[in-house]
Amino acid sequence: MKWWGWGHEGTSFTHADKPGLRPFILRHLEVDIGRATSAPVAFDELKLPPPSLAPGLAEALAAAVGDEHVSSEPMDRVVHARGKSLRDLVRQRRGDIGRLPDVVVRPGSEAEVEAVLRAALAADAVVIPFGGGSNISGSLEAPAAEARAVVSVDLGRLDQVLSIDPGSRVAEVQAGAFGPDLEEQLNAQGWTLGHFPDSFAHSTLGGWIATRSSGMQSDKYGDIADLTRGLRVATPAGLLVVRPVPSTSTGPSVREMVLGSEGRLGIISSATVHVHRTPAERVILGYLFPSWSASLAAMRDIAAGEASPSVTRVSDPEETQFSFATKKGSSLVDRLKSKALMTFLQRRRGYDLEAMCLSFIGYEGSERHVASDRRRVKKIVARHGGLCIGSGPGELYDQKKFDTPYIRDFLLDRGVLADVSETSAPWSALGTVYENVTAAARAAFAGLGVPGYIMCHLSHSYHSGACLYFTFAFKPAGGREPLEQ
Amino acid sequence: MKWWGWGHEGTSFTHADKPGLRPFILRHLEVDIGRATSAPVAFDELKLPPPSLAPGLAEALAAAVGDEHVSSEPMDRVVHARGKSLRDLVRQRRGDIGRLPDVVVRPGSEAEVEAVLRAALAADAVVIPFGGGSNISGSLEAPAAEARAVVSVDLGRLDQVLSIDPGSRVAEVQAGAFGPDLEEQLNAQGWTLGHFPDSFAHSTLGGWIATRSSGMQSDKYGDIADLTRGLRVATPAGLLVVRPVPSTSTGPSVREMVLGSEGRLGIISSATVHVHRTPAERVILGYLFPSWSASLAAMRDIAAGEASPSVTRVSDPEETQFSFATKKGSSLVDRLKSKALMTFLQRRRGYDLEAMCLSFIGYEGSERHVASDRRRVKKIVARHGGLCIGSGPGELYDQKKFDTPYIRDFLLDRGVLADVSETSAPWSALGTVYENVTAAARAAFAGLGVPGYIMCHLSHSYHSGACLYFTFAFKPAGGREPLEQ
Repeated sequence: MKWWGWGHEGTSFTHADKPGLRPFILRHLEVDIGRATSAPVAFDELKLPPPSLAPGLAEALAAAVGDEHVSSEPMDRVVHARGKSLRDLVRQRRGDIGRLPDVVVRPGSEAEVEAVLRAALAADAVVIPFGGGSNISGSLEAPAAEARAVVSVDLGRLDQVLSIDPGSRVAEVQAGAFGPDLEEQLNAQGWTLGHFPDSFAHSTLGGWIATRSSGMQSDKYGDIADLTRGLRVATPAGLLVVRPVPSTSTGPSVREMVLGSEGRLGIISSATVHVHRTPAERVILGYLFPSWSASLAAMRDIAAGEASPSVTRVSDPEETQFSFATKKGSSLVDRLKSKALMTFLQRRRGYDLEAMCLSFIGYEGSERHVASDRRRVKKIVARHGGLCIGSGPGELYDQKKFDTPYIRDFLLDRGVLADVSETSAPWSALGTVYENVTAAARAAFAGLGVPGYIMCHLSHSYHSGACLYFTFAFKPAGGREPLEQ
Repeated sequence: MKWWGWGHEGTSFTHADKPGLRPFILRHLEVDIGRATSAPVAFDELKLPPPSLAPGLAEALAAAVGDEHVSSEPMDRVVHARGKSLRDLVRQRRGDIGRLPDVVVRPGSEAEVEAVLRAALAADAVVIPFGGGSNISGSLEAPAAEARAVVSVDLGRLDQVLSIDPGSRVAEVQAGAFGPDLEEQLNAQGWTLGHFPDSFAHSTLGGWIATRSSGMQSDKYGDIADLTRGLRVATPAGLLVVRPVPSTSTGPSVREMVLGSEGRLGIISSATVHVHRTPAERVILGYLFPSWSASLAAMRDIAAGEASPSVTRVSDPEETQFSFATKKGSSLVDRLKSKALMTFLQRRRGYDLEAMCLSFIGYEGSERHVASDRRRVKKIVARHGGLCIGSGPGELYDQKKFDTPYIRDFLLDRGVLADVSETSAPWSALGTVYENVTAAARAAFAGLGVPGYIMCHLSHSYHSGACLYFTFAFKPAGGREPLEQ
């Protein structure tokens, strides 16, 4: 994990193979991305205060998890100090590393998690649970003035699928399992959890539960709140066990108090979650719509209909243009095909190419189920003036879907701030929420006197509405604090 | 509402048109149901203590809701004192009426609910929200020694569907709307909530939410917890508003704290709930299975498959026999047909008629969807040795499904105690839970030295398990407190 940015050291975004991107960003943000103009400070230059541990705490933690799993190494402390919000990254890059944890411990079992908690309580220390470190709500950071010892509890060693109950279609999984590792273990036995948030590669099951996560396939599989049945949580008052019953009809839900609690109630050590058989067939198709309002209406009608797609996603015109601009340099044949399609859309279908919206809809299940869902969706898409452009764009989207966060670091290297913000809203309010948010962003750019860009996609659907996922970028004006801007 | 039993005065269960029932109960409970042997005490004989209201409380309540909506009438106080658990009814029937509320108020708006709460708080009175009065968890009853004034807040006047948002498929509904009234208002505009608990006719939306209710069609529509998005709750600290967003991904769920809170947090005044278009087609088919284990396996496979039936219900052999015993006297042709079916099942399919299980599976949606789901289910049913017996039994079940509670009063009139108890369990544990519960009940009957009967149905299914709904009946031994037995 990079201490200053997203993902693994050595993996980064490049514009070199995307000929359309440089002119696109030059036009909209007035920035030439040809070369980097900014870089994080060197790690060696960071000023780390020495760790401050209450007397006996280091020994108690070592007794709890073993010497080799207690670390006050500089890199461990810096990586565990914050998540990956834009605010976090901007400050990390300039060497403002905040209140570091004094020690990072890595328990290897639920009993060790409990022992860590007891040791921290006895020493009046602060405990911060740490999963993948991609939190964007500030939950990993201790207050600047925190005087007590801060213990970061990294769940990374608790990465096992403990058991699968094939009859009941649930699996008990340790909280520190990262997305890819978890899916690999489940897939090996023919199962999937079906939870794919954007942070999938760098977040854990415990983190998804603690942050009440949604994913790209929540349409079919549900949010993590729907997928989670049982919980085991080490709390200061002892182990909290929510039994993995299929449903409950008594009392306020303790399960739903732990969901979204961001580590405040305790440390989730494992959870029992719904799993599904890996589908026989899986396809993501691309679609184009003549306008944003037609797209939203189509997604609404799909949600209200009898098809049950796994993915319903559509980009507004601005994000559609951005997608086209990030296409890799393609062959002459591809370019000619694409040109022919655009001509057809303009002349035969009356599309305004500037208003056009790109959509991906995913299908999973038996061959028969997928075929029948595709037919149902096709009718709705046609009713709203859209058309299918095949599986090629969908495959590309599917391969690249977890890479987007890397582009933020690429832009920070070029002095551009970019971030995302999402909300769900009822179908009947989606258009208004969209208009108001984009207008507010453009007014803010104008107020700062800088060029800026805001784009949006509907990321997934619910019964009564959908999630709008906004991405914005701008080059901050000189002479003023970028984060305030 | 009867003060001593289920439902409306004048409606009751009769065995007169069910020739198989008298011999069935004689055989299993050694009771001749030919005539009633017991009756509730007369209302006039009840000893009601005078209402005790703190000074000024009656005036404050009258100011809040209007004189005509404040009542300390004997019948109002007795009806509002308890719910309809077996424990409640046994005590009511013998004139043990418990700690009556001192006053019943009927607010006509959310503002009036708030005003009632303020008046009660100012007088240090106890407030008990009252919906349909069919609660079985004791939540309507004040402790015997309660010295403060007890105010029962009857939500019955808040019975309106306030608005329907057709685009977002949600409706805002007042909490006091009873099931039939609510469905009637929704159906008139082409919508349904799809929530049908056994108590449907005598329970309210607010009651369903406060008790975290499930229904006969929860397979398709979800539990009330899934259907409820927004809430307005008058609490001692002020109005709690949970906004009706399609989903949330932040923090512990306040919505899920109100669900199941049984009136302890405040008075639910209205809720925004999912609604669905009334389906074009709706059918409930009857099926027979050769054994309970084959039935459970079939229901599990249906839940894991691609069909989405609205009802999945199957009775164990004991409940199947009871169902046959409660059949109305049918024509000679019907009886011959039925005999021919039984002969076919025994000779051609090798069924043991004593082990056979009766199932109902419901389908809703477009003609095409229903046809495709029926095909999918048919395959699974066949794999487990079951077969479809057509729509006749299903139609009968559908008409009579809310009448079952009346039989409890009929049995109490004949000295027999009967009640229900339900739980959900994972698919892999259902068989064990069933064996253990039925064995425990039979051991309890044997311990008392009385004949008893226990039967069960799987009432609805979830992803990872299902709900088992047990019904038991026995004639208590003489000379000992029946409720203790």
